[in-house]
Amino acid sequence: MITFPQGFVASGVTAGLKESGKPDLALVVNEGPLDVAAGVFTTNRVVAWPVLWTRDALADGSLKAVVLNSGNANVATVGGMSVTTATAEAVANALSISANDVGVCSTGVIGVTMEAQPLVDGVASAVPALSADGGADAAGAIMTTDTVSKQATFETGFKVGGMAKGAGMIAPGMATMLCVITTDAVVDSQLAQNVLKEAVDHTFNRIDVDGCMSTNDTVLLLASGASGITPDSHEFARGVREVCADLAKQMIGDAEGASHDINISVTKSATEAGALAVARAIAQSNLFKCAIFGNDPNWGRIISAAGTVPEEIAPFDPADLAVIINGVPVAENGVDTGRRDEVDMAGDRLVTVELQLGSGIESASILTNDLTYDYVTENSAYTT
Amino acid sequence: MITFPQGFVASGVTAGLKESGKPDLALVVNEGPLDVAAGVFTTNRVVAWPVLWTRDALADGSLKAVVLNSGNANVATVGGMSVTTATAEAVANALSISANDVGVCSTGVIGVTMEAQPLVDGVASAVPALSADGGADAAGAIMTTDTVSKQATFETGFKVGGMAKGAGMIAPGMATMLCVITTDAVVDSQLAQNVLKEAVDHTFNRIDVDGCMSTNDTVLLLASGASGITPDSHEFARGVREVCADLAKQMIGDAEGASHDINISVTKSATEAGALAVARAIAQSNLFKCAIFGNDPNWGRIISAAGTVPEEIAPFDPADLAVIINGVPVAENGVDTGRRDEVDMAGDRLVTVELQLGSGIESASILTNDLTYDYVTENSAYTT
Repeated sequence: MITFPQGFVASGVTAGLKESGKPDLALVVNEGPLDVAAGVFTTNRVVAWPVLWTRDALADGSLKAVVLNSGNANVATVGGMSVTTATAEAVANALSISANDVGVCSTGVIGVTMEAQPLVDGVASAVPALSADGGADAAGAIMTTDTVSKQATFETGFKVGGMAKGAGMIAPGMATMLCVITTDAVVDSQLAQNVLKEAVDHTFNRIDVDGCMSTNDTVLLLASGASGITPDSHEFARGVREVCADLAKQMIGDAEGASHDINISVTKSATEAGALAVARAIAQSNLFKCAIFGNDPNWGRIISAAGTVPEEIAPFDPADLAVIINGVPVAENGVDTGRRDEVDMAGDRLVTVELQLGSGIESASILTNDLTYDYVTENSAYTT
Repeated sequence: MITFPQGFVASGVTAGLKESGKPDLALVVNEGPLDVAAGVFTTNRVVAWPVLWTRDALADGSLKAVVLNSGNANVATVGGMSVTTATAEAVANALSISANDVGVCSTGVIGVTMEAQPLVDGVASAVPALSADGGADAAGAIMTTDTVSKQATFETGFKVGGMAKGAGMIAPGMATMLCVITTDAVVDSQLAQNVLKEAVDHTFNRIDVDGCMSTNDTVLLLASGASGITPDSHEFARGVREVCADLAKQMIGDAEGASHDINISVTKSATEAGALAVARAIAQSNLFKCAIFGNDPNWGRIISAAGTVPEEIAPFDPADLAVIINGVPVAENGVDTGRRDEVDMAGDRLVTVELQLGSGIESASILTNDLTYDYVTENSAYTT
C-alpha cells in the first residue's frame, strides 16, 4: 500500500488504454517534505521510452510524482518518447511541478504505437482523484495479466509501503514488473539507491517465471521524510527488503497460469554465485517445469540442467550430487536412491527442490513455478 | 538409412525396456574392410554411463559395432556402468570382436536404475536379425517420443546414410538425440572426426526445441571403406553435412507437440557468432514461442529477447533493428511499422522470422518451433 507511509497520495483511474475498460492509469504523488527517489531498471538493451525518460528524471535523485499506465508498454513505438513526455508534462502542469520530477512507467503490449491523448486525459482524471486512501486504486490500475493486485507494508516507527504488478516474464534482471515503494523515513538519495539495489538483487532478481526479461522493468523508491524519523541504515534496508520480498512472493504466487510454486535451493556450493547460476539453470528448464506440473519428481531433469552450467562458474563433481524433493532424498552420490515414488506433490502449492553440489558451504535459492497449459494459453493469446 | 552404404548390417528388436512393447534395441555392425569411427557427444557435465563408455571406446578412432537402446537413458543410475559394460560385452561376444570396438548409446528416462539382463537378451535377439536391409528396423527401435523414425541418405560415388532419434530437448550442444551416420567412403579417423564436428556444429547445433541439453547426446560416424572410393575431403564433408542437415530438419519437424516450425534468421550482424547468440536467445523465449503458437506476430518479444544478449557478444543499436515476419516488415528503425495485421501465419507449418541488427553483413539461423499445449502434455506425462 503506497499510501501507508505519511506524505503520499495516490489514485487509479480508467484512461481507456485497456479494451476491457478496467482502470489502467495510476498516479502517486510525494507531498514531502523530502522528494528523495531511487530506481532500478531493466538491463535489457531494448528499453521502453518511459524507462529512458525516468532514468533521466532520476539522475538528480529526486521525483515528486510517478504516473504508471497498463495496456501499452510504449516500447518500439513511433513517436513513443513524445507520448511519454506529454504524459509527464500533463502531470507536471496539473501539480505545478517540473516534468523532470515526474517518473513515467508503462506496461502492456510491446510495439504497438499509441496516442498521447488518452494518457493526458487519464492524468486529468487522476489528479482530482488523488487521496491518502488511494493506494489500492493505484495498485489495481497497473495490473495486466495479474489476477490480484499486489501490495505490502512494513512499520517500525517509520513506514514502508509498496505496490507491484507482474505475473509473467519474471526473470533474471527483474521481469515485466513495475513496482513503487514509498517510505516516510528521512533518508538521502544515496542510501535510498544502495538499499533499493540490494533489496531488488535479493528479492525480485531471485524469482524467475520464464527466463524472459522485459523492456520496461522499473522499481522506484520514493521517500517523503514525513515521519521525521531518520532510521538506522540497516533497519531501513530491512524494511525495504521485506516489502520487496513480500511483493516478489505475491508475484510468483500469481505467475501466469502456474499450478505449483517451486523453491529451488542449491546448497553445499563452493560459491553463492555458483549456487545461484545452477538454481537459475534449473528454474529455466522447460522440461523440469513441465515435470512438476505433471507431479512427476523427475530429478534427472534437475541434474541435467545443473550439468549445463560451466565448471568455472559452479565447480562440482556429478558423482557428489544429491537431490531432495519435498523432503525425500531421490538421488545421493549422483545416483538414484530408488525413492522417487515416495514423493507426493499433487496437493501442494509449494514444491521444494534441494540440489546439494557437495563442493562447499554456500547456497542460493530461486523461486519459480511450473509450466502449464494456462501459461501457454495466457501467452499465446495476450495480444490477439 | 544406415544400411544404405556398403559394408553395414543392422537390426531393431524388442528388448522389453519400453512398457509399450515396441522395439527398443538397435544394433549396427560395420563389416569393413575399415572400422573407422568418429563421435561428437553432449557437453553436459552430467553424462550417461554409455557416453563415458563410448568416448573411451572411440579414443582409438575405431568402432566395429554400435548398440543403441531406447526406454532408459542409463544416467545417474546405480550400477549403470556395469549395465553398459555388459551390453557391450554381449555384442562383442556374439560378434567375436573386442568390447572396446562396441559403442553404446541409450535414451529414455533419466535416473531410473535398470537391469542388464533385458539388454543382454535383446542383443541375443538382435545379432541373428542383422541384415543389409535392417536400417529401417534400427531407426524404429531408437524412437522415444518421436512420432516418425528419421533416416537420410546421400550418394555421389560413395554413399552416406544416417538415422537419428530426437524430438525434444533439442538445444545448443545438441539435444536428447542419438544419431548414427554410416559411409562406405575410404577415410581416416582424423578426417572423419573433423568432418563430423563441423557438420554437427552447422546442423544439429542450429536447431533448438526447448533450450534443454541432454546427458546422452551422441552422434557417431562409422566408415567401412567398402566402396573403395577415397573422396575429396570437401565432397565427403558435403555428404556428411547433407545427411546431418536432413536429419536435423526431420527432428525439428517432429518436435514434441509443435504446431509451427520457426526459422529465425538474424542478419546484418557484425559477426556470425553474434547473430547466432541473438537467434538462440529468440529461440529460447517462451513468450515468443507461445505467441507464434497463437499466430500472433508479437515482434516486441523478438526484440526484447535480442536485447538480453550482451553488447560485447552482439553489438547493435536498438534504433537500427528491423523485423520481418513471413515477409512482412513489422518493425523498421527500431519501431513499429503498423503492419502487424498483414502477417498471416495460421495455415503455415513454417514461420519465418528475420531480425536485422543493422551492424554488419554476417548472419546465422536457428530452426525452432512454437510452445504448445501438446509440448506441456508430452513433457509433464513422460515418466508417469
